[in-house]
Amino acid sequence: MKFPQQHTLQQIATIIDAEFVGDSAFPVLGMNEIHVVNAGDIVFVDHPKYYDKALKSAATIILINKKVDCPKGKALLISDDPFRDFNKLTDYFKPFQKATQSISDSSSIGENTTIQPTAFVGNNVTIGNNCVIHANVSIYDHSVIGDNVIIHSNTVIGAPAFYYKNRSTGFDQLKSGGRVVIEKNVDIGASCTIDRGVSGDTFIGEGSKLDNQVHIGHDTVLGKKCLIASQAGIAGCVIIEDEVTIWGQVGIRSDVRIRKNVEIFAQSGVSKSLKEGEKYFGTPATEAKKWFREAASIRQIPRLLKNK
Amino acid sequence: MKFPQQHTLQQIATIIDAEFVGDSAFPVLGMNEIHVVNAGDIVFVDHPKYYDKALKSAATIILINKKVDCPKGKALLISDDPFRDFNKLTDYFKPFQKATQSISDSSSIGENTTIQPTAFVGNNVTIGNNCVIHANVSIYDHSVIGDNVIIHSNTVIGAPAFYYKNRSTGFDQLKSGGRVVIEKNVDIGASCTIDRGVSGDTFIGEGSKLDNQVHIGHDTVLGKKCLIASQAGIAGCVIIEDEVTIWGQVGIRSDVRIRKNVEIFAQSGVSKSLKEGEKYFGTPATEAKKWFREAASIRQIPRLLKNK
Amino acid sequence: MKFPQQHTLQQIATIIDAEFVGDSAFPVLGMNEIHVVNAGDIVFVDHPKYYDKALKSAATIILINKKVDCPKGKALLISDDPFRDFNKLTDYFKPFQKATQSISDSSSIGENTTIQPTAFVGNNVTIGNNCVIHANVSIYDHSVIGDNVIIHSNTVIGAPAFYYKNRSTGFDQLKSGGRVVIEKNVDIGASCTIDRGVSGDTFIGEGSKLDNQVHIGHDTVLGKKCLIASQAGIAGCVIIEDEVTIWGQVGIRSDVRIRKNVEIFAQSGVSKSLKEGEKYFGTPATEAKKWFREAASIRQIPRLLKNK
Repeated sequence: MKFPQQHTLQQIATIIDAEFVGDSAFPVLGMNEIHVVNAGDIVFVDHPKYYDKALKSAATIILINKKVDCPKGKALLISDDPFRDFNKLTDYFKPFQKATQSISDSSSIGENTTIQPTAFVGNNVTIGNNCVIHANVSIYDHSVIGDNVIIHSNTVIGAPAFYYKNRSTGFDQLKSGGRVVIEKNVDIGASCTIDRGVSGDTFIGEGSKLDNQVHIGHDTVLGKKCLIASQAGIAGCVIIEDEVTIWGQVGIRSDVRIRKNVEIFAQSGVSKSLKEGEKYFGTPATEAKKWFREAASIRQIPRLLKNK
Repeated sequence: MKFPQQHTLQQIATIIDAEFVGDSAFPVLGMNEIHVVNAGDIVFVDHPKYYDKALKSAATIILINKKVDCPKGKALLISDDPFRDFNKLTDYFKPFQKATQSISDSSSIGENTTIQPTAFVGNNVTIGNNCVIHANVSIYDHSVIGDNVIIHSNTVIGAPAFYYKNRSTGFDQLKSGGRVVIEKNVDIGASCTIDRGVSGDTFIGEGSKLDNQVHIGHDTVLGKKCLIASQAGIAGCVIIEDEVTIWGQVGIRSDVRIRKNVEIFAQSGVSKSLKEGEKYFGTPATEAKKWFREAASIRQIPRLLKNK
Repeated sequence: MKFPQQHTLQQIATIIDAEFVGDSAFPVLGMNEIHVVNAGDIVFVDHPKYYDKALKSAATIILINKKVDCPKGKALLISDDPFRDFNKLTDYFKPFQKATQSISDSSSIGENTTIQPTAFVGNNVTIGNNCVIHANVSIYDHSVIGDNVIIHSNTVIGAPAFYYKNRSTGFDQLKSGGRVVIEKNVDIGASCTIDRGVSGDTFIGEGSKLDNQVHIGHDTVLGKKCLIASQAGIAGCVIIEDEVTIWGQVGIRSDVRIRKNVEIFAQSGVSKSLKEGEKYFGTPATEAKKWFREAASIRQIPRLLKNK
């Protein structure tokens, strides 16, 4: 998530009421989670275990709960609660804006695009040309939708990440300042949910097709020309490369990579990254051939027992 | 389900056109299913197998299809079809009321609460302060929602129980006169469904957080500070204690109890009550350690076969 | 899918700009997929492997990409891309019509039927008497709904089939010109999706009851008095006979037949046709008795290993 314009370290420190280490004019361009940071980004860290990783990341501003040595060419923001202050920044730059009508005036809708009655289009949404947004679809603020995209009824684009910090006072949600970005020629079935990124984008690649009731978590990147069948659920921060086929009711856990041309059979549960071009089955998902061999061996057990 | 005011046995008998045994002024305060009855409640029973249980329950009025001896301090309503007449009472006290607008005038909506356009709020709904009800959410009549609750787009609160009597003429639904009650600080993701109770309440405890496409059945009680990930499905009449974590695509059958601090891994299918603090996996769900041991032993079968 | 009136071979050839073989006045009544064709129907075929099947089917007009010998009493439409031209005909006879209001004037709504606010009813929809269509339901064009049908909130009736041809230029959707037909006394839970047929009808038989978040694919035929529990997913072109019970989170692949009185336990994955009156469990689903025997045998492996 980049800010609409460059800020100074001093300005950011003022917003979150924090002490800072570095030049007051140090440039701040945005904020991101550790796995997607660039120069100019703020990253936050609140546990000594991860200090080093954050300080050595590509981020140049570290929002941290201890006054450590500042790495060269970087700046620090010192906070007693970096998580809270990261949220404060998200709220500052991407505040929740109550909608005043079902299709926001601040949305940009392309030529020859149809928005059916009862659909909802939030603030600052961009929709390309030749799209159809069917009845009772809900599109949250800041979503970006390419040309020739069809979104079927009751699908939800851009709800926030399911991402909480467990505090003694209760679960505290990490606010989602990211977006959903859908490339051209994508079809999305009825009653799907595609969550927006926490600080980056959840991304649906060109020409991919989703069936009904598919769930895609925050910051997940789906490649081009993928097929996802009904009721599949893909957690957050998953990378799915091009031309992957995922059959019905498959579940994929967070932080794994599904390589090009993988096919995952129905109801499989994926807990690890998968190899290019392979077919997978079962929970936990294994190579399909291996799965079928194991299933066949189970049927031999009665014979083994009899031979005893 | 309590009636808005106390009725007499005579009045209730008149509504359902039934004979009664007991004082015509015997007080009737409400009606409930057998597992949640109190003094003053009507319970119904239509099979001799369950007569004893109903007659000895805490309910003080028994709607029954045989003129049995009336227990002391109780009353009977004699009906040729107690199921039908229980439904008649639900219809009488909680009739379906067509909505005349998308946010009912009879609903009570707290301060600083936002209802986004295209959301639907039924009759006699109560929503607390500082809530956000997102676009295309549907809230059925009589739902009760606490402070600081966020309900994401296209979620449905308060649809009736999936509960049918199999008659030769077809399935006959037990009408749902209960409610959904959501405590404060709860987040509910997009496209969830939380059914209302048949006679009692479906309950979501304080601070619990639900991801997208979660289903929760009628009369289920979810404790405080639970986490439920995407596409999990929890049947009716389940009790989930506090601080339980349920991962994606888990299924839980009806009438089981998930004790405090349980963690259920993704895609598990729970068919029995679970022990406090344990981790579970698989279908049917077993203790995770045991599951992994069994999975490892399956991989030994080829060696066993070779050694034969 | 039958056309609103009879056309001639010549007229159809003109619409798709194709050469034809046969009498220019040869009668054309409709168009269908190979498994549901009748006399008067157009069928399409674009692979030599299936030429024979198409030419010998009940269809009397074959849209084909080679000038083969025309069977007696039939006609041919010669096209370099039969798939594209089949879609062209669907678009011609069932064009997408933008809705101008949330309940179309061209819909027919029975007596004593309630459509709650925020529901969407498309063009040429027929709804019977004594129905309730709850808030935020979406009903696509041409759907047919019988008497005494209840559709709960946020359900989607009639989205198109998830059916694509894999071309080098991307996935090309086979357009859905079919309908959803729901017989009387059906209840459909909240947030279900029932897709319309490609050329025929997706059909829900009298008295069947669906729980929440159920998915039913295109052209699937569900019998009378079936029960389908929450989050079950049924692919396209499945035949489910009468009085079948399907528990929660079951998945059923396309093109199988589930015979009368079958019961499928929760989370099962059905990959084959199932025998009348049997109970099934597991993924892939096997007879429940057999499944439990196998599960018991797995628990014997540690003993086998110890005895080695």
